[in-house]
Amino acid sequence: MSKLLLLHSATPQQIAGHILDQPKGLQLSSFNALPFDKAIDAFQYLGIRTQKAILSALPPESVARILHMMAPDDRTSLLQELPEDICLQLLKYLSPPERALSIKLLGYSEGSVGRLMTPDYIAIRLDWTVKDVLDYIRVKGKDKETINVVYAVDQEGVLVDDFRIRQFLLHPLDCQVKTFADHHFIALHVDDDESDAINTFRKYERVALPVVDSKNVLLGIVTFDDILHVSTENATEDFQMLGGVESFNEPYMEMPLLGLVRKRIGWLVVLFFGEMLTASAMGYFQDEIAKAVVLALFLPLIISSGGNAGSQASTLIIRAMALGEVKLKDVWRILRRELLSGLLLGVSLGAIGFFRVTLWSAFSPMYGVHWLLIALTIFLSLIGVVLWGTVSGAMLPLILRRLGFDPAASSAPFVATIVDVTGLIIYFTVAFVVLKGTLL
Amino acid sequence: MSKLLLLHSATPQQIAGHILDQPKGLQLSSFNALPFDKAIDAFQYLGIRTQKAILSALPPESVARILHMMAPDDRTSLLQELPEDICLQLLKYLSPPERALSIKLLGYSEGSVGRLMTPDYIAIRLDWTVKDVLDYIRVKGKDKETINVVYAVDQEGVLVDDFRIRQFLLHPLDCQVKTFADHHFIALHVDDDESDAINTFRKYERVALPVVDSKNVLLGIVTFDDILHVSTENATEDFQMLGGVESFNEPYMEMPLLGLVRKRIGWLVVLFFGEMLTASAMGYFQDEIAKAVVLALFLPLIISSGGNAGSQASTLIIRAMALGEVKLKDVWRILRRELLSGLLLGVSLGAIGFFRVTLWSAFSPMYGVHWLLIALTIFLSLIGVVLWGTVSGAMLPLILRRLGFDPAASSAPFVATIVDVTGLIIYFTVAFVVLKGTLL
Repeated sequence: MSKLLLLHSATPQQIAGHILDQPKGLQLSSFNALPFDKAIDAFQYLGIRTQKAILSALPPESVARILHMMAPDDRTSLLQELPEDICLQLLKYLSPPERALSIKLLGYSEGSVGRLMTPDYIAIRLDWTVKDVLDYIRVKGKDKETINVVYAVDQEGVLVDDFRIRQFLLHPLDCQVKTFADHHFIALHVDDDESDAINTFRKYERVALPVVDSKNVLLGIVTFDDILHVSTENATEDFQMLGGVESFNEPYMEMPLLGLVRKRIGWLVVLFFGEMLTASAMGYFQDEIAKAVVLALFLPLIISSGGNAGSQASTLIIRAMALGEVKLKDVWRILRRELLSGLLLGVSLGAIGFFRVTLWSAFSPMYGVHWLLIALTIFLSLIGVVLWGTVSGAMLPLILRRLGFDPAASSAPFVATIVDVTGLIIYFTVAFVVLKGTLL
Repeated sequence: MSKLLLLHSATPQQIAGHILDQPKGLQLSSFNALPFDKAIDAFQYLGIRTQKAILSALPPESVARILHMMAPDDRTSLLQELPEDICLQLLKYLSPPERALSIKLLGYSEGSVGRLMTPDYIAIRLDWTVKDVLDYIRVKGKDKETINVVYAVDQEGVLVDDFRIRQFLLHPLDCQVKTFADHHFIALHVDDDESDAINTFRKYERVALPVVDSKNVLLGIVTFDDILHVSTENATEDFQMLGGVESFNEPYMEMPLLGLVRKRIGWLVVLFFGEMLTASAMGYFQDEIAKAVVLALFLPLIISSGGNAGSQASTLIIRAMALGEVKLKDVWRILRRELLSGLLLGVSLGAIGFFRVTLWSAFSPMYGVHWLLIALTIFLSLIGVVLWGTVSGAMLPLILRRLGFDPAASSAPFVATIVDVTGLIIYFTVAFVVLKGTLL
């Protein structure tokens, strides 16, 4: 596509794309350079971050005009990103019915389908003809977010059917809608979680889905573009949490340095305090280390293997839970699978470790006369630590979910830290049992 | 929605949803229990895993009829999931033009836009009237994957404009298309990477995007449902890689136990060999440890802090690269940001570590008379190790991308392992300098 835009013929999306392609510092001036009507049309395609930046730099009357022109769901997304006082201030600029609508949309809890929906849908009645529908769309369709799907409601506003727009194009004009109604539809509930909505879209491959309340009254629709947006945001948050970073949705390069540090320091300090327990635990084994320094040599190897196995297990379970593949009720099946996996993985790594000590001992005296006992200690410790890491890594997300926390909080570094402390105790205990009377 | 389906009035998606809701063992029999025409319609909504399972259990003539009915892009997705010999065998069941089309689609490299596209679009000419277009859609629209967007091409098949279907509903019937053509459109290139396509969909919020070759000839379209699917798959792969698991797209619960172990053992062994270097490195410092066992106590704390900082940094950069927020050319800016972040994080953790040793020493003699030097060693080592972890964690994904590898391979455990080995050397070197003449 050409980078040079002819302004008079460019669509709002193209203008928005052009603004977004500019370096951040120039976006506001590009926006201000536009004729006001073009600017307002393009605004809704700019993404919340850029929208916030522009709104905060504009005079109140321009803010009011822009808010007035936005689709309600985009406006809600924008308002909920802003600090509460600014949000309430901006609500003043809306006309009373728009204000009521925004407040109503904002009344649904964060992360619910209610926050994603727009009331800009087309509702028809079953006793209309195809011509009635097409005429209605011609009049009303201009402002509607999507007219790809049309909904039929009864006199109470209860959703009774959905139609793809193509159905009206493929039937004769004088045909009544009810003759090709099938009375089957997929609907989201307004209090559903947005992750349910994502999975429903993925399952049924729809452009839009209707949202109903507990009495099946049609409240609005959710469109695929919002789903794609939310699905990416959720994946980013889970990904960052897995890496042990507080989640955020600002682009990395636009995040100020101190903000970046703030998103990292919290977890890092928590993990540091957790890891300080290793120093305390090792204090108890100080005498053993002094007697057999060789034990210290293998310490990082043993505990990190447990941590790695734990990271793998928690990663698998967190993602499977996010995709709805794994539920809390599967806990026993997961436990059984992970016990077996952990045992297999532990024996494999243990065998490599055993072989490593044996091989070195054949060529060097560094492990002394008791090298076989040391090799055995490594072998048994690895089985114990990897098994323990795997099982606790897999169970932790399920436990967090059970307690009402986000399972993604059981990040790879978090699991590794827990397993470090316990792995150390497993290692020295095994060493004590195996080496007692010889090295210890 | 009702769980009880009235078969005669259920849509193919509803039937597919019903089959997918069954336990895996019952899906095939539910499918076989359907009347054949209903079964074929529902098949395309089943998802590749279930499709594979069903195809492998059906007689060849049923397979042929099913393949024949599928949309070309869904058929391509299915075929490319199958082993090559089975795929070629199935191609035989297609009619010659369909076979040619499938082979052509399969000719595009994996992960390219070509693999995602379907040729089921509606193409019109600019000199048609709105009535011509609507009549054409009425005749041709039935088989088309989406008629929400309509494309205008010239006599060479070159894409010249795109229209939302609503534009034809909002203009009078005798109006010529060219009167409201704007000659601006967003198109994907057939060789583009699918991640570019995802980012383009996210940016422009389209239901479908046209795909052109280097001469701008319209080849097909990509629809949002495939984008949502691919975007979720890619997020899953990146997520699993971050956790140090080979990526896979089977649901966790359906993956056989040995398959699950196989996806984990590879990385675990690689990391184990990497981590064995810590044992070797510590061999060099054996004398220091024997002289000052207290050094061993803090070892896990120090090296894991470096690993955690590294996991955070690589997580941030990998995700930012996947979202297209960070490019290779940003390497120097990233280096500068991460040097500063790493320094701040290192000083913070170092200060906590220093305080920890000082506080303990006030109440217990465990760190001896040289506790202040030990505290200083901890402080300086943490700065060094966290700084090094942060910078190497951030640079590793960029280096991998530069070398042509997937940046997501620099998983949290991978970074942690690299930082463990180097962190250990930093720690003992600092200890040697600070404690020489006293403890060492």
